[in-house]
Amino acid sequence: METLAENKCFGGVQGVYSHKSTACNCDMTFGLFLPPEARDGPVPVLWFLSGLTCTHENAMVKAGAQTWAAEQGIALVFPDTSPRGEGVANDDDYDLGQGAGFYVNATQSPWAPHFTMWDYVAMELPALLGENFAIDLDRQSITGHSMGGHGALTLAMNLPGKYRSVSAFAPICNPTATDWGRKQLSAYLGGDESKWAKHDATLMMAKSGFDGPMLIDTGTADQFMDFLRPEALSAAIAKRRQQAVIRLQPGYDHSYFFISSFIEDHVTFHAEALWT
Amino acid sequence: METLAENKCFGGVQGVYSHKSTACNCDMTFGLFLPPEARDGPVPVLWFLSGLTCTHENAMVKAGAQTWAAEQGIALVFPDTSPRGEGVANDDDYDLGQGAGFYVNATQSPWAPHFTMWDYVAMELPALLGENFAIDLDRQSITGHSMGGHGALTLAMNLPGKYRSVSAFAPICNPTATDWGRKQLSAYLGGDESKWAKHDATLMMAKSGFDGPMLIDTGTADQFMDFLRPEALSAAIAKRRQQAVIRLQPGYDHSYFFISSFIEDHVTFHAEALWT
Repeated sequence: METLAENKCFGGVQGVYSHKSTACNCDMTFGLFLPPEARDGPVPVLWFLSGLTCTHENAMVKAGAQTWAAEQGIALVFPDTSPRGEGVANDDDYDLGQGAGFYVNATQSPWAPHFTMWDYVAMELPALLGENFAIDLDRQSITGHSMGGHGALTLAMNLPGKYRSVSAFAPICNPTATDWGRKQLSAYLGGDESKWAKHDATLMMAKSGFDGPMLIDTGTADQFMDFLRPEALSAAIAKRRQQAVIRLQPGYDHSYFFISSFIEDHVTFHAEALWT
Repeated sequence: METLAENKCFGGVQGVYSHKSTACNCDMTFGLFLPPEARDGPVPVLWFLSGLTCTHENAMVKAGAQTWAAEQGIALVFPDTSPRGEGVANDDDYDLGQGAGFYVNATQSPWAPHFTMWDYVAMELPALLGENFAIDLDRQSITGHSMGGHGALTLAMNLPGKYRSVSAFAPICNPTATDWGRKQLSAYLGGDESKWAKHDATLMMAKSGFDGPMLIDTGTADQFMDFLRPEALSAAIAKRRQQAVIRLQPGYDHSYFFISSFIEDHVTFHAEALWT
């Protein structure tokens, strides 16, 4: 593992690290914020999965999450959104290939050799963090934005017991029901739609739900609303009687200004689950 | 004036606007955050002047200032750091030309036709804001980072009565005393050092000080410490008995992670001066 940067931040350390990933078969970069409490022993951790076109850096510098993570004494991890590099397949579209891993294990050519973001986020990176930093792997929660909200919700529902709480900003809720989502799922996972179901938060909600609290914020002025389909997930949550808070935030759009406006609520929400 | 973007943020609006500047003789872009209170009438305003290589955007997306400005009900302005465009002179060095206006009115070739950031920040942009937005020009305060901290301090001390309070993050405190600072001052203002004095915060502190409260934060691990010379300004403040809080923050560097860690203190500090 290589340290690319470490900056003091809110009394803790905002670091950026690179390592050779077995899951993705390439070098991967991630951001990690450790609060001051990490000097005394392992702290709980909140994962932030970012959206399309983002790297590890966007949320790390724009979401303002460190303010509240430091107050709550929890770590923040900012993984990249896909494998990267010269030998890694890519696409001219912003929504496929590098920067658009969709948190799946791709089975199709040309993606399969590197696009293994599900295993990377769920297994490889947590293990690396536990070995190298004061992170308590028994206390993990997860959030994300847009494609990352999709990742957070689907990981949380597919891996019961792994995350104590889950939240999302403007998540892609129901990709199997849009032409746009179907394009990506078929590219990465092939034509067998039974393989898609675990990567659709609405279908997973109907099937198994989440054993813990859930918080979802979406702006009413979100410019990608047709791709997100919060109505589908909201209906599934209500039908299941899932413990959840679903908020439609008047006038907010899809930007980081929306995220930063509500990040305090999300970090506080997760801290309650992580510290009890 | 053209609206480039408007995003809802903390209940208010984070906007980006472009206009034809008379002072700089080119199009200029700035960011403006208006808190929810601006819907009901003019609000106080805090200027944030950015550092070398920055545009209007860096502090707007990375400093986290909106969190606290919304809480305090004050507006934030993020001007660009220089004139820009094809017809505007530039230099290969990062510390001269576009992105490096140093908040002076240049008198030397090739800078004089456009590099008039002093007049732009002190006069033209405030007037434009007052005409077009719910901004109370009788209640202005100013802060900045690095080159922008230099700008904030020198503007505040040269224009008594204009700003109610001044603060700075890692400001360039004494450019006339370093080879690096002398290079820029001579490029923009020529060889007559008497013309430089108003653009040196330490010299201005010795000459006239500031009629109001002052807050200065510098990280002890700042990688540009030799260029900043906080020791010179600190001595001048103490000698003058200037009302001020000078903080050396242990372990912090020159980055936006340093700024975001202490921006709450700065916004709160200015809000106290602006609301009384």
